[in-house]
Amino acid sequence: MAKPGIPKGTRDFSPIEVSKRQHIIQIIKNNFEKFGYQPIETPSFENSETLMGKYGEEGDRLIFKILNSGDKVKKADLNALENGNLAKFSSSLSEKALRYDLTVPFARYVVQHQSELEFPFKRYQIQPVWRADNPQKGRFREFYQCDADVVGSTSLFQEIELVQLYDSVFTELGLEGVTIKINNRKILSGIAEVIGASDKLIDFTVALDKLDKIGEDGVKKEMLEKGISAEAIEKVQPLFNFTGSISEKINQLSELLSASEEGKKGVEELQFICEKVAELGLKKSILDLDVTLARGLNYYTGAIFEVAPPKTVAMGSIGGGGRYDDLTGIFGLKNMSGVGISFGLDRIYLVVEELNLFPETVTTSSKAIFFNYGIDEAFYSMKIISQLRDENIKVELYPDKAKMDKQFKYAEKRLIPFAVMIGNNEMETQTFSVKNLVSGDKLTLNFEELKDLLQ
Amino acid sequence: MAKPGIPKGTRDFSPIEVSKRQHIIQIIKNNFEKFGYQPIETPSFENSETLMGKYGEEGDRLIFKILNSGDKVKKADLNALENGNLAKFSSSLSEKALRYDLTVPFARYVVQHQSELEFPFKRYQIQPVWRADNPQKGRFREFYQCDADVVGSTSLFQEIELVQLYDSVFTELGLEGVTIKINNRKILSGIAEVIGASDKLIDFTVALDKLDKIGEDGVKKEMLEKGISAEAIEKVQPLFNFTGSISEKINQLSELLSASEEGKKGVEELQFICEKVAELGLKKSILDLDVTLARGLNYYTGAIFEVAPPKTVAMGSIGGGGRYDDLTGIFGLKNMSGVGISFGLDRIYLVVEELNLFPETVTTSSKAIFFNYGIDEAFYSMKIISQLRDENIKVELYPDKAKMDKQFKYAEKRLIPFAVMIGNNEMETQTFSVKNLVSGDKLTLNFEELKDLLQ
Repeated sequence: MAKPGIPKGTRDFSPIEVSKRQHIIQIIKNNFEKFGYQPIETPSFENSETLMGKYGEEGDRLIFKILNSGDKVKKADLNALENGNLAKFSSSLSEKALRYDLTVPFARYVVQHQSELEFPFKRYQIQPVWRADNPQKGRFREFYQCDADVVGSTSLFQEIELVQLYDSVFTELGLEGVTIKINNRKILSGIAEVIGASDKLIDFTVALDKLDKIGEDGVKKEMLEKGISAEAIEKVQPLFNFTGSISEKINQLSELLSASEEGKKGVEELQFICEKVAELGLKKSILDLDVTLARGLNYYTGAIFEVAPPKTVAMGSIGGGGRYDDLTGIFGLKNMSGVGISFGLDRIYLVVEELNLFPETVTTSSKAIFFNYGIDEAFYSMKIISQLRDENIKVELYPDKAKMDKQFKYAEKRLIPFAVMIGNNEMETQTFSVKNLVSGDKLTLNFEELKDLLQ
Repeated sequence: MAKPGIPKGTRDFSPIEVSKRQHIIQIIKNNFEKFGYQPIETPSFENSETLMGKYGEEGDRLIFKILNSGDKVKKADLNALENGNLAKFSSSLSEKALRYDLTVPFARYVVQHQSELEFPFKRYQIQPVWRADNPQKGRFREFYQCDADVVGSTSLFQEIELVQLYDSVFTELGLEGVTIKINNRKILSGIAEVIGASDKLIDFTVALDKLDKIGEDGVKKEMLEKGISAEAIEKVQPLFNFTGSISEKINQLSELLSASEEGKKGVEELQFICEKVAELGLKKSILDLDVTLARGLNYYTGAIFEVAPPKTVAMGSIGGGGRYDDLTGIFGLKNMSGVGISFGLDRIYLVVEELNLFPETVTTSSKAIFFNYGIDEAFYSMKIISQLRDENIKVELYPDKAKMDKQFKYAEKRLIPFAVMIGNNEMETQTFSVKNLVSGDKLTLNFEELKDLLQ
């Protein structure tokens, strides 16, 4: 029989991996709650109509569809198959689909439960999502998203808090020098106005983002190739020397966008957020203004966030988010402004691993294993084990009588730090022979001492 | 636009529901780890061949299949559709399927990763599973399983520990009088031998289980109707007056099954487990021997467990498990005995709810909300809020300037216990006006007092 495997793009997580992931998730969760966000959970699959058409054509293709059960497959649209309309054929076979992200289910949740909710509604959600993407390094078909969003308020204090929330999580994870990049959709619109080419905005930001790599001339060349006029480029010349402190950058932007109402509004919002964050202070992160930040251009309407790991780690963004003025409009509830951020669990894991920041105590291993010398000794051990567990100490019994080296080897491979050996002598004297499996030290202890050692 | 909904048999969980579920899960998780079990996670979907054929024909039908993506649907087996072989048609459209339970993925995991694992391998797993069952009260299409299993040891100390584990979890949940029912597959085989009808074993146990409801005559009548001879029924007469302590029951069984080698082995195992558990003592649960317990008859080979809630609650079993001598054989790894138990999260939730045992502190709500009187006051509040959060206190700012009743109403509906009001006066005197939203009391506090109040 061939060894069984798992579908491509999916993963098994070993005990140590689960523990490390839980370490990160727990810190994110605690901070979400500390900042007033409350957990919700939505089903793994939604009705197809809830998801389809919400992520563009590409997204529709990447949504995992669930095959109808039983007789329902008889409704297969064979004409569509014959005509090569595979999307239509597929949808005749499927009424449900796996969650593609947490944002659309959240919007659906808000609309469905609007009468039970108090607005502003601050929710967090930590659940897996699925995408039929081509798997590659760091990209999986099943992965967790960790989102915090608030809907029903346009207050910019939310944006300020979200910056603090990022800082708080990354500080607790031990990361120093995370950069929280901020931009504003209205500033991008302002730039588009100034260059007189709204349709070229993405080309523009993509090119500008390469400034470090290909230099001012390179960027300008690319912009010209993309059909942005030399005259337009001239107008935004300040963006090519866009350095200095945030407030200096804001001053430059303010001047540059003075002719654009929307641009000015964006600068104003940005200024409010950045000034307040500066006054409140961040712990270990850096807030930076990045006008090339153009993520979610299709739905974000205000602040845009993206988080870069400490510069010593070569890795893409470990988080992102922004404000969207019409989150729930797709489900018929208008005028619900929302703002939210997301943490990229898998990448954060890799960063924390690379910087060796997982605490040694992250493991769920037992603190001690009681060796098994036979039924009587084992049963005596069980009584001690029960008492220790009542003190919330993780201990276990090697379940079978086996050779000592086998039991030692087992304890070592399991990374259990102490072995407790109880033979006739120990039973008579009510003592415990304990071996420290790291140092090799041997001790003889009474129960209280054993308890103290393992606590 | 119609209000959006979710697929039948699935659920949204509100903040309070998530918190209550997490309360139970956290207790189960802590106990799993205290007893030396370590977490693993497996993908939500497995290759179809991993799951299909493992749960019987009925199971195969209830497995959610994932529709192949893109061009792959062209491989639809139209002949099968035409011939009405819907199972074959479906499987031509699907290579992956959602997890149906945690046991088969665990067996797959053990076989796939056998070279990395130390045996005995004690793992726990808390993840959702999916079944295309007809939804009804308390039965869902997506629900969590919480399993602990150990493979690679035949030691009966495992069974003893699993009884303790059940007791420990239910005690921590505050449940008194949970009954942990135990039986042994070998005792059932012994009974089958004695009545001379192995094929009638299930009919026999089903009928015997009704003793309380329909009386001895009723049970015997049903047995006769099912084709069990009067002579056979006569031989197991003691089972109709099967009362008394566990040890008395064991004595009766020992006599009854004296002619069956396997039956005797079962009695021996049961005796060992029950005696040791009695000597170790349970905290708040009751261990009881129930010979009608016949769950998992097809795969369990030794102990069989089923857990009944306290008698004041009318509800089916809230947990179950048993020993299976060949867990991983289906994937080609022979001779791996396993034993495990499962906790039924949804039913445990209902029991804890009905008995009003969720602690009041289970909520994730903020401890206090700072009212918003305008930008300056709000920003001043933010500074205080940041300091409180640094002390791990959950607090939040009402994000917008709004009428006082609106802010009060919001705080009340959110079940936030304190409102902090900061106006000019408070800012000048560095004090805080705090209202207890439960009692209505008003206080004026300094920062240290505020911190103490909320901690």
